[in-house]
Amino acid sequence: METNRAEAFSDGVFAIAITLLILAVGVDQALAKGQLEHQLLHLWPAYIAYAVSFVTIGIMWANHHLVFRQFARVDRPLLLLNVLLLMLIAFVPFPTRVVAEHALSAGDREAAALLYGITMTTTAALFFCVWIYGSRKLLRPDADRREVSGITRSYLPGVPIYGTATLIALVSPLASLIIFGALALFYAISSSFFGRAE
Amino acid sequence: METNRAEAFSDGVFAIAITLLILAVGVDQALAKGQLEHQLLHLWPAYIAYAVSFVTIGIMWANHHLVFRQFARVDRPLLLLNVLLLMLIAFVPFPTRVVAEHALSAGDREAAALLYGITMTTTAALFFCVWIYGSRKLLRPDADRREVSGITRSYLPGVPIYGTATLIALVSPLASLIIFGALALFYAISSSFFGRAE
Amino acid sequence: METNRAEAFSDGVFAIAITLLILAVGVDQALAKGQLEHQLLHLWPAYIAYAVSFVTIGIMWANHHLVFRQFARVDRPLLLLNVLLLMLIAFVPFPTRVVAEHALSAGDREAAALLYGITMTTTAALFFCVWIYGSRKLLRPDADRREVSGITRSYLPGVPIYGTATLIALVSPLASLIIFGALALFYAISSSFFGRAE
Amino acid sequence: METNRAEAFSDGVFAIAITLLILAVGVDQALAKGQLEHQLLHLWPAYIAYAVSFVTIGIMWANHHLVFRQFARVDRPLLLLNVLLLMLIAFVPFPTRVVAEHALSAGDREAAALLYGITMTTTAALFFCVWIYGSRKLLRPDADRREVSGITRSYLPGVPIYGTATLIALVSPLASLIIFGALALFYAISSSFFGRAE
Repeated sequence: METNRAEAFSDGVFAIAITLLILAVGVDQALAKGQLEHQLLHLWPAYIAYAVSFVTIGIMWANHHLVFRQFARVDRPLLLLNVLLLMLIAFVPFPTRVVAEHALSAGDREAAALLYGITMTTTAALFFCVWIYGSRKLLRPDADRREVSGITRSYLPGVPIYGTATLIALVSPLASLIIFGALALFYAISSSFFGRAE
Repeated sequence: METNRAEAFSDGVFAIAITLLILAVGVDQALAKGQLEHQLLHLWPAYIAYAVSFVTIGIMWANHHLVFRQFARVDRPLLLLNVLLLMLIAFVPFPTRVVAEHALSAGDREAAALLYGITMTTTAALFFCVWIYGSRKLLRPDADRREVSGITRSYLPGVPIYGTATLIALVSPLASLIIFGALALFYAISSSFFGRAE
Repeated sequence: METNRAEAFSDGVFAIAITLLILAVGVDQALAKGQLEHQLLHLWPAYIAYAVSFVTIGIMWANHHLVFRQFARVDRPLLLLNVLLLMLIAFVPFPTRVVAEHALSAGDREAAALLYGITMTTTAALFFCVWIYGSRKLLRPDADRREVSGITRSYLPGVPIYGTATLIALVSPLASLIIFGALALFYAISSSFFGRAE
Repeated sequence: METNRAEAFSDGVFAIAITLLILAVGVDQALAKGQLEHQLLHLWPAYIAYAVSFVTIGIMWANHHLVFRQFARVDRPLLLLNVLLLMLIAFVPFPTRVVAEHALSAGDREAAALLYGITMTTTAALFFCVWIYGSRKLLRPDADRREVSGITRSYLPGVPIYGTATLIALVSPLASLIIFGALALFYAISSSFFGRAE
């Protein structure tokens, strides 16, 4: 199977998951009259959670292309790894909604941050698996070896970083959530200004 | 009409249905403060239902391509059969949500497993109809006869297997649900490791 | 602008709207334990509404292609008409949910049938506008005149038929809903067995 | 990276966001029997909000193509700006739902109109940033200078107009909402009848 087909399907899932994130932002249906302004301002964690997850999925989408462009073709094990990766991407709207709704509740913030962190760490791990498997078995003959090892090096810290940020939630859920936001911001800015010119 | 158009539309429905599965995973809106961690752990049937349906639809998507690649073109009856198949695929988020929410309730598990099983059996039956109709009337002149009969043979057990798993729900809904999970796992792994090299 | 772009966007909206129909099928969240089987059986109007709307949108999708294939290009007025048509297509999940939830309530059935009928009649009218405008101004030089007038003739009865079925809701909402179902069935079967071979 | 990929992903987000708008139109679940007709008529602000947002996103989609067609390629900063733009487009279903639900409540109308206006103004600003950045750095060598400056001129008033309409909400939320509707209508009609022939 050519990579095109799998990429088009993946693009679809990325685009739908990223757009479904908006379901994380919602006004309480049973809102009393005249309380809307207060509610909208009170929703700021939902706006931030929406933006952080949107940028994170957006960055993963861009990297997904970067990665699949290095492959000559896809085989069955890669398809399975890719389906598992998409399963995690499509899962992101759920922890996003949980963080959006519970980040302000002191007693629930830890559980929300852990759920978000475990999702992100697993996603990073699967992304790394897709890359390692594909780059060992399905690399294009004309792939640039320097670019390939550059990608490997840039993806290596993903799991440790997200894993650490997740564990921090056990000590300070707030710090953990701030780190997830900072990571999205950092990746977005660094890939824009220091990333490979394409 | 060329197969491309119908495949692109089908891909869209597959990608959207698979991504909408996340709506099956939800935290009770009226959750008391401090109960989030308990709720998230209690949601494990929802996580499993999400994963099983995701992998199942993912496998059907891969097979849908395998099948349509054998056809020279699509005609009106095939389009109709395909729309009915997509109608079942797009229906899967509903039984998935029902299983996710009711798998732990002893009194409701049977109904949930039956709904899930009937949906899966009907889907397998329509898949088989699409293949039988298309392989008899619209086969590419250069299709590999051995591959064609191989596909027929591999799809033949689908309906009996899913039908049996559904009937088992009348005796033990739990066993039935476990079989659906095992089937998804089996198909995913077998297609990865023993499947046709493509 | 080429027709490709507008068609791809339209295909996306068709595929998403058709898949969102499943949101019309839902189990009451506040369901008492042990009531699931009864609820699932009681949902039969939702299953029918889902199937009828799914087939109807599916047929419109197939016709949308048939129509756009006759056009050499799209211009701004056609784009606007097409956006209005898509606005109606994307609206269908709402009346479908309303019919699904209220078809069994004697006092609300008339309003539900009227909403469904008005949506379908307006959609048919916009479809006809797209075709009439495009076939007068943007026809491909090599379009088959017989096919063009055949399409015009086959679309002419759409608005009167759906309009009549809608008005019937004022007398018998049930008859109106049955007619909408019968129309979907008729179009699906007739296009399959007597439709143009393509 | 070629513009195709980024455009296809953007098209996906546009198509999904525009179709999710229908979630803004909903009947109260706890509706008393026999009240459906009254509720459906009472929903008129939701129908209008749906139509205005649908046409607005539709126009942005058409303009997004017009803009990207002028670019030779996309680079990382443009990708980031585009992701931020899509983040706003995918956000539109939320303010649409808020306006749909609260436009008739005198005490909440101002907050709803401000939310809608701020979303639209920010979207217009990001659209302008995408255009200015891309037209300065990534313009196709063969781009028509007159067309380029024509686009710049036509996008210049966007932020001031939407910003003013938003500020008007502080004085009269109703006037503000009417202006947003009128703007969508104006852009739709003017682009159809006075727009560039393509």
